[in-house]
Amino acid sequence: MLDLNSLLYPRSIAVVGASTQPDKVGGMPVRLLRELGYAGELYPVNPSSAEVQGLRAYGSIAAIGKPVDLAIVAVPAGASEDVMAQLGAHGTGAAVFFTSGFAEAGEAGVRMQERLARSAREAGVTLLGPNCLGAMNLRERMFATFSPIPLSGVPPVGEVGLVSQSGAFGAYAYALAREAGLGLSHWVTTGNEAGLQVADVIAWLANDANTRVILAYIEGCRDGARLREALAAARAAGKPVVITKVGTTAAGARSAQSHTASLTGEDAVYQAVFDAYGVHRAHTLEEFFRLGYVLSRGRRPALPPREPGQSVAAAAPLAIVTVSGGVGIMMADRAEELGLPLPAMPEHAAETLRTAIPFASTANPIDVTGQVVAQPRVFMEAIAGVARSGSYGCVTVFLAGGANAPRLWPELQQTIGTLADDPQAAPLLLAGIVDDDKRAWLESRGCLVFREPAHAVEAAATLARAAAMQGGDGAGTQADDRRQPTAVSLPRDLAPTATALSEAEAMQLLADAGIPVAPHGLAHDADEAVRIAEALGYPVVVKLCSREILHKSDVGGVALNLADAPSVRDAFGRMAQALAGARTEAGLPVPFEGVLVARMVRGWGEIMVGVRRDPVFGLVALAGIGGTAVEIFRQTACGLAPLSRAQARAMLVDSKAAALCEGHRGNPALNLDAAAQVLAAVSQLAARLGERLDTLEINPFIVSAQGLVAADAVVTLRCAQGRAT
Amino acid sequence: MLDLNSLLYPRSIAVVGASTQPDKVGGMPVRLLRELGYAGELYPVNPSSAEVQGLRAYGSIAAIGKPVDLAIVAVPAGASEDVMAQLGAHGTGAAVFFTSGFAEAGEAGVRMQERLARSAREAGVTLLGPNCLGAMNLRERMFATFSPIPLSGVPPVGEVGLVSQSGAFGAYAYALAREAGLGLSHWVTTGNEAGLQVADVIAWLANDANTRVILAYIEGCRDGARLREALAAARAAGKPVVITKVGTTAAGARSAQSHTASLTGEDAVYQAVFDAYGVHRAHTLEEFFRLGYVLSRGRRPALPPREPGQSVAAAAPLAIVTVSGGVGIMMADRAEELGLPLPAMPEHAAETLRTAIPFASTANPIDVTGQVVAQPRVFMEAIAGVARSGSYGCVTVFLAGGANAPRLWPELQQTIGTLADDPQAAPLLLAGIVDDDKRAWLESRGCLVFREPAHAVEAAATLARAAAMQGGDGAGTQADDRRQPTAVSLPRDLAPTATALSEAEAMQLLADAGIPVAPHGLAHDADEAVRIAEALGYPVVVKLCSREILHKSDVGGVALNLADAPSVRDAFGRMAQALAGARTEAGLPVPFEGVLVARMVRGWGEIMVGVRRDPVFGLVALAGIGGTAVEIFRQTACGLAPLSRAQARAMLVDSKAAALCEGHRGNPALNLDAAAQVLAAVSQLAARLGERLDTLEINPFIVSAQGLVAADAVVTLRCAQGRAT
Repeated sequence: MLDLNSLLYPRSIAVVGASTQPDKVGGMPVRLLRELGYAGELYPVNPSSAEVQGLRAYGSIAAIGKPVDLAIVAVPAGASEDVMAQLGAHGTGAAVFFTSGFAEAGEAGVRMQERLARSAREAGVTLLGPNCLGAMNLRERMFATFSPIPLSGVPPVGEVGLVSQSGAFGAYAYALAREAGLGLSHWVTTGNEAGLQVADVIAWLANDANTRVILAYIEGCRDGARLREALAAARAAGKPVVITKVGTTAAGARSAQSHTASLTGEDAVYQAVFDAYGVHRAHTLEEFFRLGYVLSRGRRPALPPREPGQSVAAAAPLAIVTVSGGVGIMMADRAEELGLPLPAMPEHAAETLRTAIPFASTANPIDVTGQVVAQPRVFMEAIAGVARSGSYGCVTVFLAGGANAPRLWPELQQTIGTLADDPQAAPLLLAGIVDDDKRAWLESRGCLVFREPAHAVEAAATLARAAAMQGGDGAGTQADDRRQPTAVSLPRDLAPTATALSEAEAMQLLADAGIPVAPHGLAHDADEAVRIAEALGYPVVVKLCSREILHKSDVGGVALNLADAPSVRDAFGRMAQALAGARTEAGLPVPFEGVLVARMVRGWGEIMVGVRRDPVFGLVALAGIGGTAVEIFRQTACGLAPLSRAQARAMLVDSKAAALCEGHRGNPALNLDAAAQVLAAVSQLAARLGERLDTLEINPFIVSAQGLVAADAVVTLRCAQGRAT
Repeated sequence: MLDLNSLLYPRSIAVVGASTQPDKVGGMPVRLLRELGYAGELYPVNPSSAEVQGLRAYGSIAAIGKPVDLAIVAVPAGASEDVMAQLGAHGTGAAVFFTSGFAEAGEAGVRMQERLARSAREAGVTLLGPNCLGAMNLRERMFATFSPIPLSGVPPVGEVGLVSQSGAFGAYAYALAREAGLGLSHWVTTGNEAGLQVADVIAWLANDANTRVILAYIEGCRDGARLREALAAARAAGKPVVITKVGTTAAGARSAQSHTASLTGEDAVYQAVFDAYGVHRAHTLEEFFRLGYVLSRGRRPALPPREPGQSVAAAAPLAIVTVSGGVGIMMADRAEELGLPLPAMPEHAAETLRTAIPFASTANPIDVTGQVVAQPRVFMEAIAGVARSGSYGCVTVFLAGGANAPRLWPELQQTIGTLADDPQAAPLLLAGIVDDDKRAWLESRGCLVFREPAHAVEAAATLARAAAMQGGDGAGTQADDRRQPTAVSLPRDLAPTATALSEAEAMQLLADAGIPVAPHGLAHDADEAVRIAEALGYPVVVKLCSREILHKSDVGGVALNLADAPSVRDAFGRMAQALAGARTEAGLPVPFEGVLVARMVRGWGEIMVGVRRDPVFGLVALAGIGGTAVEIFRQTACGLAPLSRAQARAMLVDSKAAALCEGHRGNPALNLDAAAQVLAAVSQLAARLGERLDTLEINPFIVSAQGLVAADAVVTLRCAQGRAT
C-alpha cells in the first residue's frame, strides 16, 4: 500500500506557481488554505513576487530551505518535468499536478506524462494527477484544489472517504454531499492517474483511522490486480466500499473512450469483481450518497449463520411496521424483489397489538392503521416488540408525517431512546416526513430516516450485506474449498506460436483435472475408429481432431449420432478428406492428428461453461444454459477464476442453469454442489494452465443422470511471449 | 362517465355529524372549509347543537331546506344507511363517507356496504367511500376530508389531479406534493369504492378543464372494463396518466389481500393494460411525483414519424451536453438503457464548438469540459446549436453548479429565454444544482431541472412517450389492421358442460382462421391412419384425439417421429388401448373420437402462444420462446387480446421470440410482420370464439422456413353459463 500521509495529512504545503490573484488556478489553493483554516505551514512559490496573498513568497522550491510534505503544482504542462525534478531534489513527499494537456491531449502529451510519472517514481514523490482537481482532508481543513467550491461551504467532517477519477464528478459529488449533510473525511480526484490510481486511494482509506466507508467513482481501471488488492484491503478492514462505475453500456463505453481514453471494459467482469469483494454498487448519484449515508450511519443487524447456498438477503428477515396498508404493500414488494423474507409477527407481540387495535394486521407488513394517531403507545409497543423479538434483522417503519405530530413525537423519542440502549434490539429504519431537528436526533440514536419507503427496505438489504461482510463473508472462500493442484500441464511439444490444443488434448486436460468427459478415444485409421466405437457402444460421434482447426463443423469435421460401423468408417473417410484440403493460417497443409470417437452422451439439457482472459482482471469464468438460451437470452453468470464451489454454485443459480440440474421436467435432480464442484474444477484447471491459456470452453456440458459430462472442449492459447495472438 | 361536479365543484356542502370539536372526524371538515377559504355555502348538521364552530347548525338534512351539492358524512357505520336515505330524499348530489367498519371489517360489514351502495344508486347520490379520506379541489379551496394535513400547508394550485385508493398513501402523497411544490388540481381518495372507483375519477379528470396530468395509486382493480374505458378517455383527451400499482410481487399481493381484500391480480396483465393505453408507470413515490412534474411542466418534443416496428424511444434522438465527461457517460449509459439514440452533433455546430474549445468532444455526449467557466458563451452556443438543429427530440444539459455561477447565469438566462420563444427549438432538460429562484425562472420557460443527471435523460424518454401518445400513437391500432371476422365458431354439438375441444377441433378452428397448422387428418381405424400418413409423407406424429383428455402424453397418447406404416399401425393400437382404460371426470368411459395423424414439421425453434381469460381484464395473449426457455427464463410477453399486428410484433420482440425468426444460427429469416400477423390472428380467433372460451394455447408453434406452423393446439372452455369450471 502506498503511503498517502504526505498527500492527505501534510504538515507543510508548498504551492508552486502560486498566484497573487486568488481566483486563478495557482491562487485558489493559497486562498482556500488561508481562508478556511489550514493549520500547517504554507509556502507560496513564485519567482516574480515577494508576497502572495499576504504571505511571504519563495523564489523557488530550494528557497524554502527545508522539505515540505506536499507540493501543489499549478504550472504549464511543459514546465512540469522540471518542477518534479526540483521537488525530488528537495525531499518533497507528495505532489498534486492540476495541469491538463497530458495524456488526454494526444501522443505528445502521453509521452510527457510518461516522463513526469517516471521522474516522480525515481524521485520518490507520490504523484496525484496530472489533469486532476486535487484532494482535501476535511478534518484538517486541507484544501489542495483549485476548485472554488469549498468557498461556498464545506460538508460536515465525517467518516466517508470519497475518491473520483473524474474531477467534475468529484466536484458535483462534493456539492451534493454538502447539501445532504453527509460527513466526509477525505476527498480525492485522480485525473489522468499517472501516479496514484483510484485503487491506491481506496487501499490507503482502508487503513485511515478517520474513514469508515469508501465511496469511489471510476470510469475504467488500468490495473485490475491493484484494484482487487485495494478492495481486499477494505474488506479486511471491515470498511464497505461503494462504487459508481460508468460506461456500462456500449454508448457509455464509447463516450468514456473518447473522453479519457479509458477502456471501460466489460461490465459483467466489473460486476464479478465487485461481487467477489462485497462492493456496493450505485447506479445513480442519489444511490451513491444514500449508500454512503446508510453504511456510515446505520447499525449492522445481527444475522443468523447462513445455510450453504443461502443468499445474504434470504438470511435477513425483515419486519415492516406501517401506518398505511398501501405503503406497506409497496415496501413488501421491494422486500420480495430483494429476496428479504417477511416472517409474521411473533405471537406474543401480535396478541398485544390485536388486543389494542382489533383491525390491525399482525401479518408482515404489520399494519397498525391510522389508529396510530389515537393510540401512539400501541404503535410504539409494536415497534419495540418486533425490534426485541430476535426474529428480524432490521425493522422498517413507515410513519408518514407521524414523527412531526406533537402527540407522537415524545412517544417515539422514548421508544427509540430505549431501543438505542439495547444492543439486542434490531436496527430501525424509518420512512416518512420528519423535520430536520427530529431527523438529526433520530440519526444520533442510530435510526436512519428516508423519504422513500422503499429506500428503508433497500437499506435493510444493504446493512445485511455489510454485516455479512464484516462477519467474514466471502473473505477466503476463494481458497478454502479449492482442491490441491494435481499435475496438469499443457503438452510438452507445443510450439511457442501454437494458438490452440486439439480436442483430444483438451479432453485429456479435463480428465486429468477430474472433470467428467464423454468416453472417447483417438483413432488414426478407420479400423481403429470402429474398434473404439464398438468398445464405447453405439451411437457415437466422430470429430476431426486438430490443433489447427477450431471450427470443425465448418469443414464438415463433425458427425453426430452414428449407429453402426459402416457409418463410422464413412465418417472417418470424410474427415480425412476434409483435412486433406485444409490449410493452416500460414497456408501449410494441416498435419493429421487423428479423429476423435466419443460416446453420444444423452441428457436433458446443456450448460455452457467458459473461462477467458480479461485484459484488466485476468481469468474470468462464465456459465449459462447452452444452446438457444445462451445465444438469445444471454443470461450468463460471470465470476473471477479460479472459483470456489460456493461461487460456482451461485453462478449456476444466477444464470438459471441450476434449474436444469434440479429436476427440470421430471428429470432426476442432480446434486447441485457436485455440479458446482465441476464448474469450480474447470476454472481451477484454467488457472493452473498458466499464462499461455487464453480461453477454455466446454459447450455443451451435458446435464445427465450421471451429472455434468463435457461433450466438447476448446482450449485456445496466447503466444508464449505473453500477448494474445 | 360519471359526473363528479357535485363532488369536486360543489356550491354547497352539508357536513352530517358535524362536531363542535374541530379536531374530531366530524369537526375537521368544518374547520378546514372555514379556515382555508371555501367560498360556497356550508351547512353543519348536528341534531344536538344549535351552533358548530361559529356556524349555525341544522338539526337534520331536511332542516337545511334546499338540496346541497355535497354531503360530507361522519356518522357511525350503523347510521350510514339511514343518512343515505335522507340525502337521497333531499336531492343531494354527492356524498363522502369517511366511516370505516364496512367491507374491510368482515362479512356483516360487506353486507352493510352493499346496502349503502344500493341505496346510493337508487337515490342517485354519487358515493365516495366509505372508509376513505375524502376529496379536495385545490383551486376552489374545497377540503372534504378529515385529515388535518391541509392545516400545515396546501400545495400550489396546478394541473395535476391525484387519485388514490388508499387514504394514507393519498395523505403522504399530498405532503410530498406540497414539499416538492407540485401543483395539484384535485385530490381524491376512494377507500372501499362502494360507489366511485379510481377508474371513475380518472375518467372524470380526463374531462376536467383544470387537469392536465392524472396521477393514480391502485392496489387492485375490480372492474377491468371501467379502468380501460377511463384510460381510453384520458388518452383521447391527450392527458398522460401515471399509475403506481402495488402488490406486484407475491409478498405484496398477499399483504394487499389481507389489507383491503383487493385481488391485486397478475402484474404482467396490468402492465399489458398500461402499455395498451400509454400509461406511465411509477414504482416509487419519488418517480410518481417526478413523472407528474415532467408531464405537467415539460414541453413535448417534435418527433419524426416512426417506422413500422420502431419503438418510441428509437425515434427520439437525444443530445447530451455536459461540463463533465464522467457525468456525460452516466447519462449516455441511461440513454442506451432506455433505447434513446445519441446521434453525433451536426457538423456546423460541431465545427463552431471545436474552433472555440479545441479539446471539447463533439460526439454525443457533447463535452464542453470545465472550460465552460472561462467561455460561457461557447457553452450557450453549443446548447442553442443542438436545440435548433432539428436533429434531436430533447436536449439534456448537465451544468453541475454552473447555473448558480454569477458569470454563467445571465448567459444561461439569455439563451433559455431565446430558445423558449422558438417553437422549433427542442425542449431543454437541465441537471445540476440550481437555486430555487433560478429553478423557478427556468421552469417558467419550459426548462425542467433535475438534481440527478440520469433523471434528465429519463424525462426525455417520458416526454417522447407523451408526445407519441398525443400524436395518436396506439389509439385505434387495436382495430385498424384487424381482419374482417371470418366464419369461425365452436362446434355445434358441444355440451354446455364441455370443458375442452379435441385437438382436431382446435386445429380446424385455427385452419378456419387462416393460421398455418401442421398438415393432418383424423383416423378412425388403423388403416385410415396409415392412409393419411402415406398421403402426408413420413415421418408423422400420431396423437389421441379427445375432448376429455387434455394431457395426452400422460396416458401415452402421443407418438412422435414415426417413419413407416407398421409404426403408425402400432401407435394407433396403443392409443385405442390407452383410451379404453381412460375415464372422464364423472367416471364414465371416454368416447372414441379418433386419432390425429400429422406431419412432423421440422424447424429450428419453437414459439409458445397462448390466450387466456383474466378475471379482471378479459382475454390476454402471451407469447415467448417455447421449451426450456419459457419454463426457465419465463420471458413471455403479454398483451390484451385481440392484438393488432403492431402489438403482436412488439410482443415477439419483447419476449425475444423475434430472435428465432430473424435468421438465428444461420437459418433463413422469416418475415417478422407475417409472424406477427399469425400471432394477431390467434388472438383474434380467441376473441371471436366468445364467452365460452377459457384458454387457447399453441405450443409449439414451429419456426420453420415456411413461417410459423402450429404443431399442437389446446382449447379449454368455460361452462355455457359463464363461470369457469
